Amino acid sequence: MPDSTSLPDFAPTARSRVRRLHERGRYDRATVYEILDSALLCHVGYVIDGLPYVTPTLFWREGDRLYWHGSSASRMLRKQSEGIPVCVTVSHIDGLVLARSGFHHSLNYRAVMAFGNAAMVVDDGKKAAGLDAFIERLYPGRNRQIRPISRQELKATTLMSMVIDEVSAKIRAHGPVDDEADYLLDCWAGIVPIEMRLGAAIPDERLKSGIPLLDGLDHLAAGGVLPEILRRLAQHEGE
Amino acid sequence: MPDSTSLPDFAPTARSRVRRLHERGRYDRATVYEILDSALLCHVGYVIDGLPYVTPTLFWREGDRLYWHGSSASRMLRKQSEGIPVCVTVSHIDGLVLARSGFHHSLNYRAVMAFGNAAMVVDDGKKAAGLDAFIERLYPGRNRQIRPISRQELKATTLMSMVIDEVSAKIRAHGPVDDEADYLLDCWAGIVPIEMRLGAAIPDERLKSGIPLLDGLDHLAAGGVLPEILRRLAQHEGE
Repeated sequence: MPDSTSLPDFAPTARSRVRRLHERGRYDRATVYEILDSALLCHVGYVIDGLPYVTPTLFWREGDRLYWHGSSASRMLRKQSEGIPVCVTVSHIDGLVLARSGFHHSLNYRAVMAFGNAAMVVDDGKKAAGLDAFIERLYPGRNRQIRPISRQELKATTLMSMVIDEVSAKIRAHGPVDDEADYLLDCWAGIVPIEMRLGAAIPDERLKSGIPLLDGLDHLAAGGVLPEILRRLAQHEGE
Repeated sequence: MPDSTSLPDFAPTARSRVRRLHERGRYDRATVYEILDSALLCHVGYVIDGLPYVTPTLFWREGDRLYWHGSSASRMLRKQSEGIPVCVTVSHIDGLVLARSGFHHSLNYRAVMAFGNAAMVVDDGKKAAGLDAFIERLYPGRNRQIRPISRQELKATTLMSMVIDEVSAKIRAHGPVDDEADYLLDCWAGIVPIEMRLGAAIPDERLKSGIPLLDGLDHLAAGGVLPEILRRLAQHEGE
């Protein structure tokens, strides 16, 4: 599927415009997509009987569409499949920012808030293809090794999608900015970076003998930075 | 402030009960608090004009109360200060779970969904104390080095709090569970752990000479696992 980076950038709307510290707001597709593609988890917000719910869930992007999946018995997905408005928020923590006053302490982060209406993918062929695509994106080549999805499993799985109607990104990516007089204080200031890294893979206890560690999934080797890995996988897929 | 672990555990409610994969649901205070205390960021869900919003923000816990803060000009906080219902969700990604079918692929995670009503802390003394406590929790001793908060900064900052009315934790922490026949497949299976780690601190360009790296904040040294660090800081504070 061709990517939509050739489409015009998103326009800030009453709902999506970054108001506070608006210099941190971004609306261009490249920035929004990169933040989304670097993440594994999103937080889906929705309303039931007037009350807010926020569910963390795996997700992926294709063009201007977000996908997430789950059990057909899920209360969240049953409600969302009615086509209700959702807010999908994705965030990365990049570093602690230590300043010379409490007020100027901060966090470096990248976040996206995307608004749209959740819709259930009802066509079985599209559903199976979507789920396979998610596996293939994280684990290229894996669909040739694993057992294909069964009819029963397909029925038990709900695939949701949402076209991004309105969206904003918000980024902070710099050191402390202190009041001029405070630079004289004898106080350490700077950034402590935060990274999400992979640890050493742990083989399943019932793994068949003779299968090498990760068997071809070299991109998941210990020490890798997960958001970077995910971003590269998404770029590769878009080629 | 004494911790509330001596209080009875939370009771699952119609709203908080984990329905899907209910064996993953937990309601005891120790589990809920540990997941909360190990995190820096929460995702706050709220409703404006019937539509959902999810904002990522720093937070901290004291007893059965959650706190978060931000600019007094923030649209989110102005709305929340009216006392509206919120859902505060906190999640940790612990590992990719690779199984022998797409259906049994999973994610190891720990998450908490907490429901309550957001209330603004209006008393200036309590507000200043709350903000100082947040700095002190992350950076013990730092309030003695930095400039204290000014009257103007205090006014510009909103501190929100929420008593946890209803809450559930959900945890997955084990390897793949495959269909019996699939164990025969020649397919690597297991866990790829994911950890949030600290990188090497980057001193501010305008740091005064003679101040050692991190100056006493040894717990933020490179390589540390952030959720572990945060959990230990919270335990220490509760002593």
